[in-house]
Amino acid sequence: MSVKVNRKKIIEEDLMEVQTEKKNIQKLRIGIVGLGNLGRGVVKAIRQNPDTDLVAIFSRRPLADLPTDLPMANLDNILDYKGQIDVMIMCGGSATDLDEQSPMLAEHFHIVDSFDTHARIPEHFAKLDQVSRESQTLSLISAGWDPGILSLMRVLFQAIIVDGQTYTFWGPGVSQGHSDALRRLPGVAAAVQYTMPLEDSLVRVRAGENPDLSTRDRHRRICYVVAEEGADLARLESDIVTMPHYFADYDTTVNFISRQELDQNHSDMPHGGIVIRTGQTGQAEASQSEKGGLHQHKLDFHLTLGDNAEFTASVLLVYARAVHRLAAEGRIGAITVYDIPIGYLSALSMEDLRANYL
Amino acid sequence: MSVKVNRKKIIEEDLMEVQTEKKNIQKLRIGIVGLGNLGRGVVKAIRQNPDTDLVAIFSRRPLADLPTDLPMANLDNILDYKGQIDVMIMCGGSATDLDEQSPMLAEHFHIVDSFDTHARIPEHFAKLDQVSRESQTLSLISAGWDPGILSLMRVLFQAIIVDGQTYTFWGPGVSQGHSDALRRLPGVAAAVQYTMPLEDSLVRVRAGENPDLSTRDRHRRICYVVAEEGADLARLESDIVTMPHYFADYDTTVNFISRQELDQNHSDMPHGGIVIRTGQTGQAEASQSEKGGLHQHKLDFHLTLGDNAEFTASVLLVYARAVHRLAAEGRIGAITVYDIPIGYLSALSMEDLRANYL
Repeated sequence: MSVKVNRKKIIEEDLMEVQTEKKNIQKLRIGIVGLGNLGRGVVKAIRQNPDTDLVAIFSRRPLADLPTDLPMANLDNILDYKGQIDVMIMCGGSATDLDEQSPMLAEHFHIVDSFDTHARIPEHFAKLDQVSRESQTLSLISAGWDPGILSLMRVLFQAIIVDGQTYTFWGPGVSQGHSDALRRLPGVAAAVQYTMPLEDSLVRVRAGENPDLSTRDRHRRICYVVAEEGADLARLESDIVTMPHYFADYDTTVNFISRQELDQNHSDMPHGGIVIRTGQTGQAEASQSEKGGLHQHKLDFHLTLGDNAEFTASVLLVYARAVHRLAAEGRIGAITVYDIPIGYLSALSMEDLRANYL
Repeated sequence: MSVKVNRKKIIEEDLMEVQTEKKNIQKLRIGIVGLGNLGRGVVKAIRQNPDTDLVAIFSRRPLADLPTDLPMANLDNILDYKGQIDVMIMCGGSATDLDEQSPMLAEHFHIVDSFDTHARIPEHFAKLDQVSRESQTLSLISAGWDPGILSLMRVLFQAIIVDGQTYTFWGPGVSQGHSDALRRLPGVAAAVQYTMPLEDSLVRVRAGENPDLSTRDRHRRICYVVAEEGADLARLESDIVTMPHYFADYDTTVNFISRQELDQNHSDMPHGGIVIRTGQTGQAEASQSEKGGLHQHKLDFHLTLGDNAEFTASVLLVYARAVHRLAAEGRIGAITVYDIPIGYLSALSMEDLRANYL
């Protein structure tokens, strides 16, 4: 009898050990909705992060049209995966996709999306907050690099330096929206548009001049266009540089090139962003007990991306990690990058971060 | 009787309204421990942040020796201020001060300190965590710019770009520790030491070369020394450049100057710091469904401080704001910058941040 009890105890202890070990090696189980550039970027990011695991990629397309070397699943069957996925990363191809899919999936999963129509963020947030509270899920919206990492910098910088001015520049990089606008023009067979920050303005901002910069002073636009045969190039160039909203307010350069040159030199998707805040602390006048004097400070963050989609995907994955942790603490509703402690983004423990990174 | 009841109700409603209003305009009540450069910096930062209020500055020095235009109080009377101060900002002049004072005051107040002896942070954290949990207070340790803002960048950058390398550079700026080491040498009347990042190394890091950099490759040191009359300058210079730990591992330049020149050109306390991470995403080989290709990325943060103490003070104040909010949510124990959502640093509401900064 006593032997039996002892054996039972030993088995229980073994079981406990196995369970503890299992818990320790429990990976973050990721689902991806949408297999465009962003979704493929998340697949690659998961391979770089050993604490994460790809469960399935959901697509509306028929399985026959989809790669066989990835764990594809049909979007219609996504509810079968409840309980098997910790966080769903929304990689829909357009703002319209996220508009519908994020609230739909937040009923059933914790989600991260990269909703980037700035003007409509409050509306998207309100919708997700309601659905997620009702469904006891956690939804992080508008992650990526802008909105996302640059948004963090803007708020961090402004909080610290109250009396100052913040500037955001984008590029050099491919703007999908502007490239699309070119492609819609009659006579254009293919096109890529680069947004470039104006170096002269950057120099003035970094010098602390606090310049007043118009739209034209901040960025210029360079277009590489493959024209259809017989197109009137002079007319096309004029149509481009005068196009309202997209190009008229900028100094725009149009380069007509061959399809081969476009494919060879302009198929990458680099991008970048810069947030600079300059400002001052101190006081102009000396008082009885304090020296006078104003002191200038500068906070300057510069992001250079070799591939927009892969970088954005990496950001979405680390925010998925944070969402998982916050959800485990019982947090529900909609949140943004502003709600996340930076340590929650890391695969390392807070102890490790304090000892080795602080 | 009914009139009386109604009057009572009206009075209650009025009171409630007044209390609500009071709550809405309730400022963050700050106490400062220590009136050195850092404490004076916090005084100035409070003037720049209209949602904060200075209650008292506590000092060990006799009141007679202290400025009369600041709300000075004796450190011995600090417990009289319980309930009148939301967060105490620890501005002790040395690591030793914080070692003793932070745990002592965490028994009674929520605190923020700038403990910066990197190797001893885990020990300081453990001590504060125990005291604060026992006392139901919240203690944020090691805030400032390094540790602090640069620490945030290191962890944020490394989380996003897993396969890469991070570099931290400091300066150009005055190092208090190295200036003190110079002043302790016989024959030195006064001295200031500047730490300078090596431009060549910065260029290589920014180019994504991932160089292996020795201590000597990262920084050089420039000393401005006022020698005592009759000092042997050649001997002094040799004593400086060969001083172990402080100068021997660096290329060090010694400039002998007059007291007047030192006072005129070297009384400011500029500093700076740079965190750069370069690395890659993607995959070398193409698979059935995925293009091959590695993409290089760079995250580059550059801080330039006109005045080290005033900037650090501004950082401490925004972290005091975050501590107040987290404490109001019931958080206790010790925390670091890694535990703070960035939005909690801002005086603006999350709604405002989402609508206008995301």
